[in-house]
Amino acid sequence: MNGAESLIRTAIENGLEVCFANPGTTEMHLVAALDEVPGMRGVLALFEGVVTGAADGYGRMADKPAMTLLHLGPGFANGIANLHNARRAQTPILNLIGHHATWQRNYDPPLNTDVEMLAAPVSAWQRTCASAAHLSRDVADALVACRRHAGRIATLVVPADVQWDEAPERIEHAGSGAGAHVADDTVERIAGLLRTGGEAPTMLLLGARALRESGLRAAARIARATGARLVCETFPARLERGPDLPALERLPYFPEQAVSFLDGIHRLVLVGAREPVAFFGYRDGPSRLTPEAVELEVLAGRDENAERALGALADALEAPETGSARELTPVAAPRGGLDPAGVAQAIVAAMPENAIVVDEGVTAAGAFYPVARNAPAHTYLTLTGGAIGWGMPCGVGAAIACPERKVVVLEGDGSGLYTNQALWTMAREGLDVVTVVFANDAYRILQIELQRAGVSQPGPQSLALTDLSRPAVDWHALGKAFGVETRPAKTAEDLHAALGGALAAGGPQLVVAEVR
Amino acid sequence: MNGAESLIRTAIENGLEVCFANPGTTEMHLVAALDEVPGMRGVLALFEGVVTGAADGYGRMADKPAMTLLHLGPGFANGIANLHNARRAQTPILNLIGHHATWQRNYDPPLNTDVEMLAAPVSAWQRTCASAAHLSRDVADALVACRRHAGRIATLVVPADVQWDEAPERIEHAGSGAGAHVADDTVERIAGLLRTGGEAPTMLLLGARALRESGLRAAARIARATGARLVCETFPARLERGPDLPALERLPYFPEQAVSFLDGIHRLVLVGAREPVAFFGYRDGPSRLTPEAVELEVLAGRDENAERALGALADALEAPETGSARELTPVAAPRGGLDPAGVAQAIVAAMPENAIVVDEGVTAAGAFYPVARNAPAHTYLTLTGGAIGWGMPCGVGAAIACPERKVVVLEGDGSGLYTNQALWTMAREGLDVVTVVFANDAYRILQIELQRAGVSQPGPQSLALTDLSRPAVDWHALGKAFGVETRPAKTAEDLHAALGGALAAGGPQLVVAEVR
Repeated sequence: MNGAESLIRTAIENGLEVCFANPGTTEMHLVAALDEVPGMRGVLALFEGVVTGAADGYGRMADKPAMTLLHLGPGFANGIANLHNARRAQTPILNLIGHHATWQRNYDPPLNTDVEMLAAPVSAWQRTCASAAHLSRDVADALVACRRHAGRIATLVVPADVQWDEAPERIEHAGSGAGAHVADDTVERIAGLLRTGGEAPTMLLLGARALRESGLRAAARIARATGARLVCETFPARLERGPDLPALERLPYFPEQAVSFLDGIHRLVLVGAREPVAFFGYRDGPSRLTPEAVELEVLAGRDENAERALGALADALEAPETGSARELTPVAAPRGGLDPAGVAQAIVAAMPENAIVVDEGVTAAGAFYPVARNAPAHTYLTLTGGAIGWGMPCGVGAAIACPERKVVVLEGDGSGLYTNQALWTMAREGLDVVTVVFANDAYRILQIELQRAGVSQPGPQSLALTDLSRPAVDWHALGKAFGVETRPAKTAEDLHAALGGALAAGGPQLVVAEVR
Repeated sequence: MNGAESLIRTAIENGLEVCFANPGTTEMHLVAALDEVPGMRGVLALFEGVVTGAADGYGRMADKPAMTLLHLGPGFANGIANLHNARRAQTPILNLIGHHATWQRNYDPPLNTDVEMLAAPVSAWQRTCASAAHLSRDVADALVACRRHAGRIATLVVPADVQWDEAPERIEHAGSGAGAHVADDTVERIAGLLRTGGEAPTMLLLGARALRESGLRAAARIARATGARLVCETFPARLERGPDLPALERLPYFPEQAVSFLDGIHRLVLVGAREPVAFFGYRDGPSRLTPEAVELEVLAGRDENAERALGALADALEAPETGSARELTPVAAPRGGLDPAGVAQAIVAAMPENAIVVDEGVTAAGAFYPVARNAPAHTYLTLTGGAIGWGMPCGVGAAIACPERKVVVLEGDGSGLYTNQALWTMAREGLDVVTVVFANDAYRILQIELQRAGVSQPGPQSLALTDLSRPAVDWHALGKAFGVETRPAKTAEDLHAALGGALAAGGPQLVVAEVR
């Protein structure tokens, strides 16, 4: 057994199943090992941003890491943006970066770079493997780091000679990485605060695993027993939604809207969420979004077990079960133009039971969240780190993690173009993903941001650098290039019908919503 | 004048003309400043790898830096791979990375990351601007770093508030960055060695600026006077070729071929080239490629003025001018299949005078270099750092630097898919670039590397991870998606005709050579 086989076997014996890959010469022994050791599914992507975005989507849905296989520093660098999103989402991922043979690296050949420095900003744990003898232990250590409750990115740099050298038969196992539990007296203290209430209501800001089913059910009990408002962080990594779960308000994106939303709040309890801060700082704008006088409490930090803490809090409050499901207001298929309201209604009206919705729709999908309060049960994934080019790759990973579920990707055209190669992996793997791309031929959010920066009359260069219309990208041709069937939509009726048709057809489908 | 305007004005007054950009919210004031301060051409790309690859192509051809405009750490990260290539090519580039306002960054908002750490591996110089008052000085300092003789990458992180704060009127100027001159006694010593000769001939390995016209003419004089062999490094950043210049041999890529090529060499003189090392290390393969007993001399290091040193050496040798141009052997338009020989002949037979050839053709273009010995005068740019996805972006930058010249990009399909968005910038800017993509539906080089790694019968996963045929990418549709006219080529006759037609048509053109 060589090092590469030892590595793959260790990953498989520790429960890993999928390796998203864009390999090169220094990874050939790892590629060969995927054939030698059965049990690991290799999935090729044509660009590393697709590899890492898919690993993010997979990890969010499977609750265990996928591996990535990347080619030295430059290949890894191409995957950093989506690893940044995954880091913000606390997604577990095990990166494998092949590298020059240990003795070769001393000669600084052309592809050499400081991969360890590149990996550090997005890796919670990293190591450069020194010998095949220790490779199984390296993988097990990496998986311990990955499996901390909240999910972590671990990065192993694997030199070529470590892959081909003979390795011992022994396979190491990673312990389970239980997340830190919230202390009982924290729960008791917060319960005491909620019991005494006060006039202004308490707000619970939920993030991370507080947004899973058991967390949300406990949160609903707490809200019912105490009158607390339940609010979702602006960009949840994974939020479960549906009639059986409480409909959360959502903290707005723009800081002035968020300040207004939080205005008058007396007490804010963080449950797996961070203290709200502005996504961007504006001239004379705030960074902190909460009122000066707010009483800020933390039930569960980002790394703590928020689900369990919510259950404990509900029990401490002796809060009864909330009983029957919410009554959904049926969302009718809309008529007319593709404004944000029409877009949202068309999508929600077509959504099947138990879909996974990946939202990188930026401005065009802005009305989806409130309208989807009346959608059938679904899982909602968003862009946690703001690095665009995440949506379609994430859809790839979510579909591979959950082959029995429909995946719907809401994609901005500017964002989608970053990692358009994801369409090809959808086609190759025959994934059940419907991507709705909102073709407005612009970085619309930047046109809004120009206004916010005080540029009321953008000049020709400002217009050119935020415009995608000269030439407009032909998304039907782009779908065809990568082997994905496309459907046009110019009206809300079209969009609803195209989405219904695409979902019924199954497999990878691209709906081009012309929201110009 | 705000900081952004101070920055752009400083760049313009120091001779910069082009800014390749993919901006975001934190760069809006810099975008607006491009309108406020006339003289800087903003060029939008749909992905940052296109931005940095274009800056590489521009810098190689213009011999001065372009600016890049990138969005925080993740946006910069998307550009690292092509900056890696540019670093290896010693291309001058000034990166501008917009960032959170100084006070906002303390709150670690979602897009925050350690951009300084990400920038370090590819930046010879970097600084995070602290105030608008010093911004002009920051830019001038960066340009001093860029303009060292060999070319360097300088990176400025520009927080949003530094862009919008009021800046002083004073504009700083960067001194000219002359390259280090080779000492006279080094020239004298090497001249002495060459005069005494010996039986085995001396080889001059030329790299960096030794490959420009004046360097090559001096090298030709030296070769004629001493019998020295003239060899080009394997991956030249920019090589001038043509009947008026000596036809250099080229150091082979695979290490066993390079060892064989260098076998028997008595003395190797490095002129702007590094000591030859294997691109990758193989099991039981060499790292150093030169014979043990070789006498290694350095006329000019990578950072030294190799052109001037060659001239001085030729003068010291009292070597006469070499006289008339080489007689070219006409290359006939080929017939038959698209094997490497046919591909090379078809291209060379169609090449116009004074073209710029960007070669990321990998296996399919492997015969171009020797055949192009008989091509009309042209400039030849290659992938210096091995990070694929460089060819088409480099073509964008070369065309913007040299609008009066034809650019021909030789592109592998696997490589081209990395940064396919470059086609859109060619269309938007109406660039005179003909891209020939070699569609073999495979990472063919990896299929070769699998064999070299000892996998004679690749299993299904090894086949899948090196194959692009399921589904085959439809390059005609891809060209259409981005507004570039395409032409098919199934035979050598087709390729020659398609290339001729594309060159005659002018503007961006894509020729799809089916080398399956």
